[in-house]
Amino acid sequence: MNFNIEEAVAILSRTPQTLASLLSGLPEGWLGCNEGEGTWDADEVVGHLIEGEKTNWIPRLAFILREGESKPFPAFDRYAHLSAGSRTTERKLEEFAELRARSLERLRALVDNEEWLEKTGAHPAFGKVKARELVSAWVVHDLTHLSQIVRTMALRYKTDVGPWVQYLGILNR
Amino acid sequence: MNFNIEEAVAILSRTPQTLASLLSGLPEGWLGCNEGEGTWDADEVVGHLIEGEKTNWIPRLAFILREGESKPFPAFDRYAHLSAGSRTTERKLEEFAELRARSLERLRALVDNEEWLEKTGAHPAFGKVKARELVSAWVVHDLTHLSQIVRTMALRYKTDVGPWVQYLGILNR
Repeated sequence: MNFNIEEAVAILSRTPQTLASLLSGLPEGWLGCNEGEGTWDADEVVGHLIEGEKTNWIPRLAFILREGESKPFPAFDRYAHLSAGSRTTERKLEEFAELRARSLERLRALVDNEEWLEKTGAHPAFGKVKARELVSAWVVHDLTHLSQIVRTMALRYKTDVGPWVQYLGILNR
Repeated sequence: MNFNIEEAVAILSRTPQTLASLLSGLPEGWLGCNEGEGTWDADEVVGHLIEGEKTNWIPRLAFILREGESKPFPAFDRYAHLSAGSRTTERKLEEFAELRARSLERLRALVDNEEWLEKTGAHPAFGKVKARELVSAWVVHDLTHLSQIVRTMALRYKTDVGPWVQYLGILNR
């Protein structure tokens, strides 16, 4: 096990600024490109991260700490952001940063003792989970979506790189 | 073809700040983790990006514009950073940002007319390449290494996420 709460927060607290550094002010060609029908562009990924702050991570953590395994926590709608109304990417980045800061305050308040991280709850699909597995998944969820954005942008230049395609692993998955 | 020079520069100019936002001040557990024997941690990736600024991208572009296909440009040592002496990750991030800013100034000076991007040179391994393919590869090279850092950090929590492993694509490549 590698998890510890300080190191987890070190990633979670950096994600908004990392996304803003990568995406803020980028031309629409980058913000609006995706990997094909049914896949998300960078703007949609930020929308999905916003929904996660609102309805997934902290609400689920609070639910586990409150209810234990007595009832499963509600399923998370992974497509909620697709009907969440339009805002600019810039505004979404700001909103995500505000929500994440608030989430981390709540995390500190909920987990004022590391023993809370060993509490268990009931995931609606795969049953018994620990609070610290949820927090670990939150960290990896940030990283998986950052990776998705970066991969999507790289693929936009798949033809443009010419023969270099063979040296650039990200283009050959 | 999706390439245009302004959009390429939009990515290239953001990479140093994106890396700093992600990595600056991170605990050693994150900066020093890798994907196993012979793979690079985040600190080593930044070292590799520094070497690229010094000896790969702009030097090769200048070589193509000067020499055309008359002689192949020198091979790039992809492992040079492993013997480049030790500095802190923080110092490397600063050095990369300085070098990248200088590279982009040189790019502007070298490509003062977009026609230059159609010039061809001779890659030592795969022959004829265009200047704009080199610049495209530079962009994707940034993204591939950002992706590598993010994937490496995610894998550190592969066990920690418990049953969520099945939902987190980055852990299942």
